[in-house]
Amino acid sequence: GTFLLNTTFEGEELIKYLPNKVKKLLALKKAKFYVINATKIAESIGMGNRTNTILQASFFKLNPSILDFDLAMEYMKEAVVKAYGKKGQDVVELNFLALEEGARALKEVKVDPKWQEYEVRSLKEEAKDEYYDYYIPSIASLDGNNLPVSVFTRNGLLDGTHKNGVSYNEKRCTASEVPVWLKENCIQCGRCVFVCPHATIRAFLLDEDEVANAPDIVKNDLADALGGPSVKGLKYRIQISPENCVGCKLCVVECLGKVGKKALEMRDINTQLEQGVGADYLYKKVSYKTNYFPTTAVKGVSFMRPYFEVPGACAGCGETPYYRLVSQLFGPDMLIANATGCSSIYSAAAPSTVFCTDENNEGPAWANSLFEDNAEYGFGMRMATNFKLYAIRRIMLENLEKLEPELKMLVGRYLDNQSDKKIAREVRPRLLELIENSSCEGIKEVLNYKEDIVDKSIWIVGGDGWAYDIGYGGLDHVLANRENVNILVLDTEVYSNTGGQASKASQTGAIAKFAASGKKTAKKDLAALAMSYKHVYVAQVAMGANPVQVIKAFREAESYDGPSIIVAYSPCIEHGIKSGMDSHQEVQRKAVACGYFPIYRYDPRKEEPLEIDCKEPDYDTFRDFVLNETRFNQLPNVNPENADELLENSKNYAKDRYDNLVNILNQQKRNR
Amino acid sequence: GTFLLNTTFEGEELIKYLPNKVKKLLALKKAKFYVINATKIAESIGMGNRTNTILQASFFKLNPSILDFDLAMEYMKEAVVKAYGKKGQDVVELNFLALEEGARALKEVKVDPKWQEYEVRSLKEEAKDEYYDYYIPSIASLDGNNLPVSVFTRNGLLDGTHKNGVSYNEKRCTASEVPVWLKENCIQCGRCVFVCPHATIRAFLLDEDEVANAPDIVKNDLADALGGPSVKGLKYRIQISPENCVGCKLCVVECLGKVGKKALEMRDINTQLEQGVGADYLYKKVSYKTNYFPTTAVKGVSFMRPYFEVPGACAGCGETPYYRLVSQLFGPDMLIANATGCSSIYSAAAPSTVFCTDENNEGPAWANSLFEDNAEYGFGMRMATNFKLYAIRRIMLENLEKLEPELKMLVGRYLDNQSDKKIAREVRPRLLELIENSSCEGIKEVLNYKEDIVDKSIWIVGGDGWAYDIGYGGLDHVLANRENVNILVLDTEVYSNTGGQASKASQTGAIAKFAASGKKTAKKDLAALAMSYKHVYVAQVAMGANPVQVIKAFREAESYDGPSIIVAYSPCIEHGIKSGMDSHQEVQRKAVACGYFPIYRYDPRKEEPLEIDCKEPDYDTFRDFVLNETRFNQLPNVNPENADELLENSKNYAKDRYDNLVNILNQQKRNR
Repeated sequence: GTFLLNTTFEGEELIKYLPNKVKKLLALKKAKFYVINATKIAESIGMGNRTNTILQASFFKLNPSILDFDLAMEYMKEAVVKAYGKKGQDVVELNFLALEEGARALKEVKVDPKWQEYEVRSLKEEAKDEYYDYYIPSIASLDGNNLPVSVFTRNGLLDGTHKNGVSYNEKRCTASEVPVWLKENCIQCGRCVFVCPHATIRAFLLDEDEVANAPDIVKNDLADALGGPSVKGLKYRIQISPENCVGCKLCVVECLGKVGKKALEMRDINTQLEQGVGADYLYKKVSYKTNYFPTTAVKGVSFMRPYFEVPGACAGCGETPYYRLVSQLFGPDMLIANATGCSSIYSAAAPSTVFCTDENNEGPAWANSLFEDNAEYGFGMRMATNFKLYAIRRIMLENLEKLEPELKMLVGRYLDNQSDKKIAREVRPRLLELIENSSCEGIKEVLNYKEDIVDKSIWIVGGDGWAYDIGYGGLDHVLANRENVNILVLDTEVYSNTGGQASKASQTGAIAKFAASGKKTAKKDLAALAMSYKHVYVAQVAMGANPVQVIKAFREAESYDGPSIIVAYSPCIEHGIKSGMDSHQEVQRKAVACGYFPIYRYDPRKEEPLEIDCKEPDYDTFRDFVLNETRFNQLPNVNPENADELLENSKNYAKDRYDNLVNILNQQKRNR
Repeated sequence: GTFLLNTTFEGEELIKYLPNKVKKLLALKKAKFYVINATKIAESIGMGNRTNTILQASFFKLNPSILDFDLAMEYMKEAVVKAYGKKGQDVVELNFLALEEGARALKEVKVDPKWQEYEVRSLKEEAKDEYYDYYIPSIASLDGNNLPVSVFTRNGLLDGTHKNGVSYNEKRCTASEVPVWLKENCIQCGRCVFVCPHATIRAFLLDEDEVANAPDIVKNDLADALGGPSVKGLKYRIQISPENCVGCKLCVVECLGKVGKKALEMRDINTQLEQGVGADYLYKKVSYKTNYFPTTAVKGVSFMRPYFEVPGACAGCGETPYYRLVSQLFGPDMLIANATGCSSIYSAAAPSTVFCTDENNEGPAWANSLFEDNAEYGFGMRMATNFKLYAIRRIMLENLEKLEPELKMLVGRYLDNQSDKKIAREVRPRLLELIENSSCEGIKEVLNYKEDIVDKSIWIVGGDGWAYDIGYGGLDHVLANRENVNILVLDTEVYSNTGGQASKASQTGAIAKFAASGKKTAKKDLAALAMSYKHVYVAQVAMGANPVQVIKAFREAESYDGPSIIVAYSPCIEHGIKSGMDSHQEVQRKAVACGYFPIYRYDPRKEEPLEIDCKEPDYDTFRDFVLNETRFNQLPNVNPENADELLENSKNYAKDRYDNLVNILNQQKRNR
């Protein structure tokens, strides 16, 4: 057979990096071995990071037995015209060039027969930790069938649970370039950390001991912490995990830097791999210090531990920064019901999990339901949690008079504050200790609920396909009830994971599958529907437009003792943003400014619940905004007759939605 | 054993009316036989038509072996206090009296041993029509198990379909009083017919032949038709079907009459049974004349054939007048998907069906889905219909050039107007005749679609439990699409059929199961949600408030080539209307006037789609309105602390809903 490898390496270096296992196989099979550097070609001819057309040509060039190559080339060119014709002749020509380069740039590598003799040790023999080094990579390399049952029993996997903290250790090195921190230009604002979709850039404050124990690469590249006397003596560092970074460049784009000089720039990953040692030390061994800066603002949040790290999302994903943020704010208490879709895939492409635990072994517990019942699924988690809290309460009340004085006092304090997670967490260690040592046997039943002493923060998460369409019936019913759950809708306005079908969240004029000539109907106003119940906490947020508003909305939603829903505007590769995914924060600013996606919070605890968090939209910029995205700007090509009307309708519907907000403001003033 | 019969008959008359089958059984079993006239007792002590407490006492009086009667009485009285205590001491005393009367008024009837010798012929022997006289009554009398399979095969029942037109023939004689027509006071407005929940009072215009062929009871009681020269020579008659009427009295209450004299009054049913002959003649043999008065108004509609007749609904049901009306307007073309709930029960308590066919053998086809997928079920009917229409189109186009001239012309006319049911129906007979006789073999494939030549009018019907709650996810998705379906929501604001659980349609402050201390959250505004899509025809209607608006909304919805939804306010026994169910039309007027349920129509075909069909509400009457219903007026008793606030909220939420309408009016002016 023939083996083709797309790689940036060549010559000696290539042979060095190729695993012995692969070399041995190539030699045993007497394979022909070719390489191509499609990444470099794509970049050099102006195709960015799109290598598919190039590699398609390579495939057919190497397989004339499937189809005569000249004929294949003819067909591929026809396909190019069909697929890209509407985008213009220049795009067509570019793809023709890519095809030719894909055939031309192949290089053969000699397979050395000596490779046959290499000894390859099995994963099992190599494993230090049976779970992480044997179980996980066996599945990841499609060899799960050969795992013995004993591995499952020994690792407590029989009920389908998986352990946390896998994705960070995968270190897949998928980026070709990663950011580098230039401390002299850094104002320590934390913005790079805040926008990162993968939690692979983090900010740290280090005390003396932590500096002393640090590897040299950290020790030798530290800044003095800025922020006044309280941080005097602490060192500051931005740490990138190059092996986990996907190179989306968002942090670089968003970096404010100092007088025009950015504190981050992209460099070849091969020059940065040694930074991994710094990441392993800081991410996993140094304390996350949240007591120096308020965690209601971007800087303070940048020091919080993300309990959601290295998701397998697209580079520049608009969803994951929200997910990462919510994990920073509530991670140790989270119980998550996740609908199927992008968020379930990047959260847990089994056996990989993006959720991790902290030094107290606390962190999110996550489960995935199929679309339709995800809201109910999370609602059930709430009911189960209520039941457990009630059981603890009952046991404590039944035995209260039989308790020793200190225990009685602590139980009283706990019962008075059972729903206050902070107090419950404070009380817990001593409470459990005293219960274990109590002479009252009845109270020991509480020990069955050790992990349930602190109330849970229930999060129901999914995309618009789930929330607006498939799971909407249940979501609506959960909203109409009064239980304390938090719903996070990652709204990409399209079925992202399945390849871009229109959802009820898609806006008028947007092109999508099932709406090939532009969607005709209005975007469903999910947040407005939720507000009409009057007892639901509701927010629309767009991180790029107002990061502090997002933090505020998440905190308010979580603290509200009733149903909350946050609709988070999430740019997506399906939008075809012309300025690139690394501009997605800027896109959000514009979306809000032009009225495409207004941001606001509706808090039923307030006398005037609704607060609009953006200026009155400037609708004159609406059309410019949407035409920056392929989903809209192809409209004049595919539907010339109605394009204008559809875009005008789209704007008017946006006006109507904002107008409804103003109407609610007026109503609440009147009703006071 | 002991047999207790609750009956208004006694003595000789009782024996006369008792079927031989029953008498024979009593004699064979040597049963003890008691009668009681609980209806009369209830009326005389002031309990209206509530006989349950009385009969409960009778039961225990006759069964001391179950429980010593004195003890049973003690328990029953305790239960009375528990159930009615909150309604006041007078209600408690009344129920005590009912218990005593129930025990006291029992009369024993002698069972004559000679009854044993009566010959009773089986249903099968008696049957003229195997389906109606044998199959149906066997099931109705719980003897279905003894039906031979041959009955099913012979009657084409193997696929689960049932034949139409059963309920009218049941003639269950459940009323004790029925209306009588007093022609001298009648202004022939048709209002009585329009409000009838059971289609058991109808208006007819008779020509000379029809008068000549009429039974005497009709012939001798006719008025000259009013309405100018066009109806000159025609006779007018209001015909009641006493055996099917349930005696709800709505027609009498709503009768306008002449200068204070009503044209209808209630009389003992036993004096009216002979009117059944008139009903059988007029309902089933005389033509329904719709060409003399416009069928856009109440009078014209009163002459239209109801294709929905004698439903097993409660006396005074607020839902069935809408269902009857929609069947009058679109019956021959209707394909109905009915969600489970009251409407599915009263429409088809198998084997009984309320739907009937006309002289052309046309009428509604009806099927019941369980709640959750009813909207999708109807959507599927639409897709299937589209598919068939498309198939006809394809066959016709493929063969067009091979057709004879007249057929070609007719096919052309049909194809040009395929979605126009009137034209398609006109063309159909000759079209099919010519196709049958055509020399073109290809065109004959159309004959497979004989029943599909005329497009169908798809109706998706259900209550608020389905539409707002259980089936809402699917309903929303059907609305968001653009297929031509019509959705009728019979909104009783509560789960009626299952005994009064709160739904998302329940209004704030209403007491219901699961909302025992008054519902706290706002009524979900289903119509507003539908309007927010912009492409959905939406109406809220309340028959009592504006009958012409209801007719208009139904016609507009049906004619709109896209999804339509009508939310119809439907008073229900679960509301506990203090003025009685026979006041339900007046209740609707008040509901609209006070802002509790505004009526309007939103037609996307219009430049300014929304039209509000009621005056600005007078919110000062809101509280009086709701306090006329037990669901609200118990609130100060069961929840004294919050009653005031809840009712105030309820009013404010009503204001918000109306305010939203005004907001939409303003938006559409701006967007023009």
